[in-house]
Amino acid sequence: MEFTARQIADLLGGLVEGDPESRVSALSKIEEGKPGSLSFLANPAYTPHIYTTEASIVIIGKDLKLEKAVSPTLIRVTDAYASFAQLLEMYDTIRKNKSGIDSQVFIHPDAQIGKDVYIGSFAYIGKDAILGDRAKVYPGCYVGENTRIGNDTTLFAGVKVYSDCTIGQDVRIHAGAIIGSDGFGFAPADGGYKKVAQIGNVIIEDHVEIGAGTTIDRATLGSTIIRKGVKLDNLIQIAHNVEIGEHTVIAAQTGVAGSTHIGKNCMIGGQVGIVGHIKIADGTRIAAQSGVGSSTSENEILQGSPAFPIGEFKRSYIHFRKLPGLEQEVRTLKQKLKDLGNENS
Amino acid sequence: MEFTARQIADLLGGLVEGDPESRVSALSKIEEGKPGSLSFLANPAYTPHIYTTEASIVIIGKDLKLEKAVSPTLIRVTDAYASFAQLLEMYDTIRKNKSGIDSQVFIHPDAQIGKDVYIGSFAYIGKDAILGDRAKVYPGCYVGENTRIGNDTTLFAGVKVYSDCTIGQDVRIHAGAIIGSDGFGFAPADGGYKKVAQIGNVIIEDHVEIGAGTTIDRATLGSTIIRKGVKLDNLIQIAHNVEIGEHTVIAAQTGVAGSTHIGKNCMIGGQVGIVGHIKIADGTRIAAQSGVGSSTSENEILQGSPAFPIGEFKRSYIHFRKLPGLEQEVRTLKQKLKDLGNENS
Amino acid sequence: MEFTARQIADLLGGLVEGDPESRVSALSKIEEGKPGSLSFLANPAYTPHIYTTEASIVIIGKDLKLEKAVSPTLIRVTDAYASFAQLLEMYDTIRKNKSGIDSQVFIHPDAQIGKDVYIGSFAYIGKDAILGDRAKVYPGCYVGENTRIGNDTTLFAGVKVYSDCTIGQDVRIHAGAIIGSDGFGFAPADGGYKKVAQIGNVIIEDHVEIGAGTTIDRATLGSTIIRKGVKLDNLIQIAHNVEIGEHTVIAAQTGVAGSTHIGKNCMIGGQVGIVGHIKIADGTRIAAQSGVGSSTSENEILQGSPAFPIGEFKRSYIHFRKLPGLEQEVRTLKQKLKDLGNENS
Repeated sequence: MEFTARQIADLLGGLVEGDPESRVSALSKIEEGKPGSLSFLANPAYTPHIYTTEASIVIIGKDLKLEKAVSPTLIRVTDAYASFAQLLEMYDTIRKNKSGIDSQVFIHPDAQIGKDVYIGSFAYIGKDAILGDRAKVYPGCYVGENTRIGNDTTLFAGVKVYSDCTIGQDVRIHAGAIIGSDGFGFAPADGGYKKVAQIGNVIIEDHVEIGAGTTIDRATLGSTIIRKGVKLDNLIQIAHNVEIGEHTVIAAQTGVAGSTHIGKNCMIGGQVGIVGHIKIADGTRIAAQSGVGSSTSENEILQGSPAFPIGEFKRSYIHFRKLPGLEQEVRTLKQKLKDLGNENS
Repeated sequence: MEFTARQIADLLGGLVEGDPESRVSALSKIEEGKPGSLSFLANPAYTPHIYTTEASIVIIGKDLKLEKAVSPTLIRVTDAYASFAQLLEMYDTIRKNKSGIDSQVFIHPDAQIGKDVYIGSFAYIGKDAILGDRAKVYPGCYVGENTRIGNDTTLFAGVKVYSDCTIGQDVRIHAGAIIGSDGFGFAPADGGYKKVAQIGNVIIEDHVEIGAGTTIDRATLGSTIIRKGVKLDNLIQIAHNVEIGEHTVIAAQTGVAGSTHIGKNCMIGGQVGIVGHIKIADGTRIAAQSGVGSSTSENEILQGSPAFPIGEFKRSYIHFRKLPGLEQEVRTLKQKLKDLGNENS
Repeated sequence: MEFTARQIADLLGGLVEGDPESRVSALSKIEEGKPGSLSFLANPAYTPHIYTTEASIVIIGKDLKLEKAVSPTLIRVTDAYASFAQLLEMYDTIRKNKSGIDSQVFIHPDAQIGKDVYIGSFAYIGKDAILGDRAKVYPGCYVGENTRIGNDTTLFAGVKVYSDCTIGQDVRIHAGAIIGSDGFGFAPADGGYKKVAQIGNVIIEDHVEIGAGTTIDRATLGSTIIRKGVKLDNLIQIAHNVEIGEHTVIAAQTGVAGSTHIGKNCMIGGQVGIVGHIKIADGTRIAAQSGVGSSTSENEILQGSPAFPIGEFKRSYIHFRKLPGLEQEVRTLKQKLKDLGNENS
């Protein structure tokens, strides 16, 4: 795909400065710009790069004054970052614009397949499963019996969704993620453990994104629920009967234990652990590597393992670093007090 | 599947109170009961729900006295929870009662396939591999050369077992788990590293459950061993030459480094790290997010990173939270002592 | 495969002591030696086992003096460990010496396939993808459009590499690893989040090893780069635009956040977290479970969450364990000082 500066300016509603026939076929950062690439300048700290970049076209703000001539063709727009992000998105959409059903697939005769879907080779669509319109199921995916995948949802390569789950619309699930595996439930029996059957499911609402290798267990009974707009990074573990509220964002490798409910608009760092059966209130923020052992209040910000309010944690940790000094001071005081006692006696 | 109260009561050896022809086709929690669903009441704290639930049938203890009339049909049994768990299990067994060999599979002519197995589409069974009777290999699984899978064992979708491994009977391995990958062994060489070949295997004994996305590396030489009845949650990492003793339970995202031996009946929390080449004694319990750096004694309970006895950790942590106050007190004492010294001089 | 002591001695340039026709068909540790197995003795601490092992052949150092007769045939070599490692490697190479293209695969007509490759069943090679000579793609792998796999590189079962990535030569990627998934990038919008398209790629240079279940996200723009000779263990998370320098080694379950650059020859323990947008200098070492929140200096050794120099951490932690005692001492001092004050007044 190759575009001229004129075509891109028309697309973005921008104005061309320089050669309107300048052509690009790739996107780049301004500091890594190569001939034939399109870049952007939004952050003033990067302004010096405009004079040295080899990019053929650069999108910049309409009011940015330049101190000398530049070699790339410029496209002047209202918001350079937003315009560039729009191009990124268009590019990404074109790149992922797959459709059709490959020949080596398994689709159960009782499955319902929507319009304009993509089903890649070696994908498995089970009995009574439903694929919405424009759903994309990449090669090697597994959609269990009676599982529903909403319109415009994408399962990247090798995603496995067990039976009876419900995935909403405009959801993206990255490669290797596992949805609907059995919750980790065992009852002590005869010196060992007996499995507690896990017959619930997982419900994922609309506009959710789930990272590569993330695992979400089905509920024992009822549903594990990921609400609208939640964003989960890679290698996250969500246990049975957890519920995650709307627009909550969780970074990689965090784990949430069974039956915990997380509120809306929370921001949870990477490698956080959250115990089971608690409530994380709306707007809670949790620093990376923290361990949360009890319910939180709205908009609390926590750190530590076990976690407590972040300001207190930071103060305690400063003193933790200085502990050898504090211990030394106490020893000195003790000696002085002893000396003083001796003097007095 | 639809059942009447009479049928269920016969199955459980219970007594019907109310309409024996009441019908259900789903299982639910009592507080989420809907018409057509079967629920149970075991925990006295949930008793008020019996008067408001919309469930059509509720299983309750035979001696539980109710204060007023209830709308669901009741089935009176000796132990309501156990009876309900029995139904869950029956339901789960029916749901997973798959058999037969799909058409698009690869089964090496030298593989041995037991009776009544299930082999799903796009599964690969390598040369000299052995599948036991009633084994279930879901779509997209890989069973390497010379690997044995015992009777009644299930590999859910996309499980990969490398060559030469041995999986026992009645084992469940969840989607995306990886068994028998190379251990992480490298020797320094020429400013970089040279791989140490990993030619051992993994042995998993009977009645083990392994969670989604969990990885178990093969031994350098000899075997990585998961003993009878062990339960591993999701996204756990077990390194080469590790051994895990009977009936030990490990929560999600924990990692065990190379050559460490874990005893029997241990309970290990989530996100725990255990260093290599140590012995975790029988009955050791380790709190979530702990880091264990040395061998433990029987029945020890540990917390912290590095971990030490949990009672001591909790006391230290209380004082950690109060460190700024302690430091303030020491400063005050120092000043007072100085004043006192001045007075005295 | 069966070999005689004479054949093995010829291979290793060693001398036979005992029956040169003694035969072996397996490799074992000396303490687990069985008839028909070949073992080695390199560590003097294991010398007593030479008198009791049932191994049929043992490789030992040419100068090692034995105190009495032994039953296995000995092969005397200059460096027993190196010779045994050489055999391990040969065995491993033979075991993995697969080639040919299975029948149930998808290879896009525009893909370029090198000489002597192995492509296992249910593998998918996308449009314009390139497979180098002797590359091995095990069953169930996915190689996206326009992705290049170098000569002598192996993707074990179920590895997924998204489109437009570049994997070098002599790289090993273990089962279930995910390369090139979208970076975790979202911009706040309308009370929720809007995805930032991730159109960069992942570049993996030569001689890299990547563990089972590890995830490496593609760059937003530009490349996530894993340099020559890097070794990554299992279940590691590498975020978008990260760069990892030559010969750096990272243990299991560690996570590196976006845009962080890690230098050469670093050693990073398991379950470490590293925040985004920092520089980890060459030769940095980080203890397991640490959390690194800021850039490091060359050859620094760090521990803690947040991490600081390991010697200081260890001293602080010793005092953390003794905190209840310190607090008690401060209380005692306070009382004594009060008493002293009272006496003085």
